Amino acid sequence: MKYCFGVDVGGTSVKLGLFTTDGEILDKWEIPTRKENKGEAILPDIAESLRKKIEDRKIDKGEIKGIGIGIPAPVTGDGIVKNTANLCWGYKEVNRELRELTGLDVRAGNDANLAALGEMWLGAGKGQKDMIMVTLGTGVGGGAILDGRALVGANGASAEIGHVCVNYHETKKCGCGKTGCLEQYASATGIARLARMRLAWDEEPSILRNQKKLDAKAVFDALKEGDAVAEEIVEQFAAYLGHGLANVAIIVDPAVIVIGGGVSKAGDILIPYIKKYFLEKAFFANTETEFMIAQLDNDAGICGAAKLMIDK
Amino acid sequence: MKYCFGVDVGGTSVKLGLFTTDGEILDKWEIPTRKENKGEAILPDIAESLRKKIEDRKIDKGEIKGIGIGIPAPVTGDGIVKNTANLCWGYKEVNRELRELTGLDVRAGNDANLAALGEMWLGAGKGQKDMIMVTLGTGVGGGAILDGRALVGANGASAEIGHVCVNYHETKKCGCGKTGCLEQYASATGIARLARMRLAWDEEPSILRNQKKLDAKAVFDALKEGDAVAEEIVEQFAAYLGHGLANVAIIVDPAVIVIGGGVSKAGDILIPYIKKYFLEKAFFANTETEFMIAQLDNDAGICGAAKLMIDK
Repeated sequence: MKYCFGVDVGGTSVKLGLFTTDGEILDKWEIPTRKENKGEAILPDIAESLRKKIEDRKIDKGEIKGIGIGIPAPVTGDGIVKNTANLCWGYKEVNRELRELTGLDVRAGNDANLAALGEMWLGAGKGQKDMIMVTLGTGVGGGAILDGRALVGANGASAEIGHVCVNYHETKKCGCGKTGCLEQYASATGIARLARMRLAWDEEPSILRNQKKLDAKAVFDALKEGDAVAEEIVEQFAAYLGHGLANVAIIVDPAVIVIGGGVSKAGDILIPYIKKYFLEKAFFANTETEFMIAQLDNDAGICGAAKLMIDK
Repeated sequence: MKYCFGVDVGGTSVKLGLFTTDGEILDKWEIPTRKENKGEAILPDIAESLRKKIEDRKIDKGEIKGIGIGIPAPVTGDGIVKNTANLCWGYKEVNRELRELTGLDVRAGNDANLAALGEMWLGAGKGQKDMIMVTLGTGVGGGAILDGRALVGANGASAEIGHVCVNYHETKKCGCGKTGCLEQYASATGIARLARMRLAWDEEPSILRNQKKLDAKAVFDALKEGDAVAEEIVEQFAAYLGHGLANVAIIVDPAVIVIGGGVSKAGDILIPYIKKYFLEKAFFANTETEFMIAQLDNDAGICGAAKLMIDK
């Protein structure tokens, strides 16, 4: 078969892509995510958008392998979502419902796991079989690929890298209710917090003190200008992240770790900092692990979704 | 095909088993592990022992699926061992060498990963697809099964649960060279250390003070007799183990965690202690994870080895 759709459902928009089964992106577009009435329109809207695309491009439905779809929630191996904070869904059988709406085969997965699969297929992890991806955005997400397949887990909740405990002495709570989660320090929000706390520590001069918006980007921009206080903040962020990733690598034994999400836009300058602390805690078998910055940006999700279906 | 061999290579003896492909153990026996001359006799000895067994039982070689073999070292997906502390091997292509010696198909894996696979096939994890096994012996070993398959990893070193960092403030070194590894606290050696340190803390009376041999078994025996100091030691052990397993579960998302190794002979009394601390740090999606004591004892390795070959 020649074609496959990849769909990535987000809290505000749904990204859709038409792929060849060889990995060429033929088309990509977006539709809004309509969350009213428990998000009941989301899957029908996707089905309708795909129907139009098939019609417009005069594609023979028999040439379509199916639809892969990423959901921002745990998704079981059978495509079942138990609940989603972001989409207002309760229990939903995504594979079955979207198959009934489209007449096409469907395979659903967790969006972070599929982003990792996308980077493995067409991005930074190309050619790899064992890979971790960590997504540093507002929160910290993660995905793991082992032997070329995205991990799923018993509850569809594998590779929740943001909630690995990296500080057993933390007293403040993470959004998940636990304490000491990687997300508390290595997300964009966490980096901004580390920055505020460092600046509050003393009066050491720093260009960060003149910033209107003290966010992760400001910290990495200041680092690039040689600001010593910014470097201290980056060292602290990198220590939490590097130590956390070392603990993940001990379980997954990846060939490559891909750093994605908004924070990764700081670029390759991040890697030596993260690697230094990773090596401090890495098991001897994992010391050759390569670090790379993600390449597919917002397309990772649709790419991985298509790949999940293609590999079915 | 009807038969399969499972082989488990240890530092002092090699365990061998003849299985039906349905999971019945027809025969099991042992031979010594001859480590002299870089362990060059180990694979030929195994081949000769299997040859005799085939002859004695008058088995048609065409009815044998092959040989699964567990090695106490990282083993890549292609059956390559880079070095082993315990067997004195350097680089060894186990699949190829043993295939050439026996004329049978061979598949090698890491012994701890295969023990986990064995427990999933015929032991405590029966019927599960997503499982972690942690082996509490002289050291702490581990294996992970995801979607019914033993994780391998890029270097054949997945699920090294004993070397997850559970104490970022430890200054004493683990055998692996790092600090704060789970193995430093939750192995039989670690438990004995926690016991000595607790007794050294003050003069509180405890039946442990009269023990000739203050080992893990003595601690759990004292716990069963209601000794309060022993309970404190078990709480401390369980905190390190429960927290470490919570960090592993966040990555693997298992349905069940199986506790094996010598320490697990203490039995079900361990489970509530471990579970209490696991839940303290578990991600919300993992709170339903079940805990079980391993059932196959020393047979787990040969069972898992056979299963690896059967699933090939």
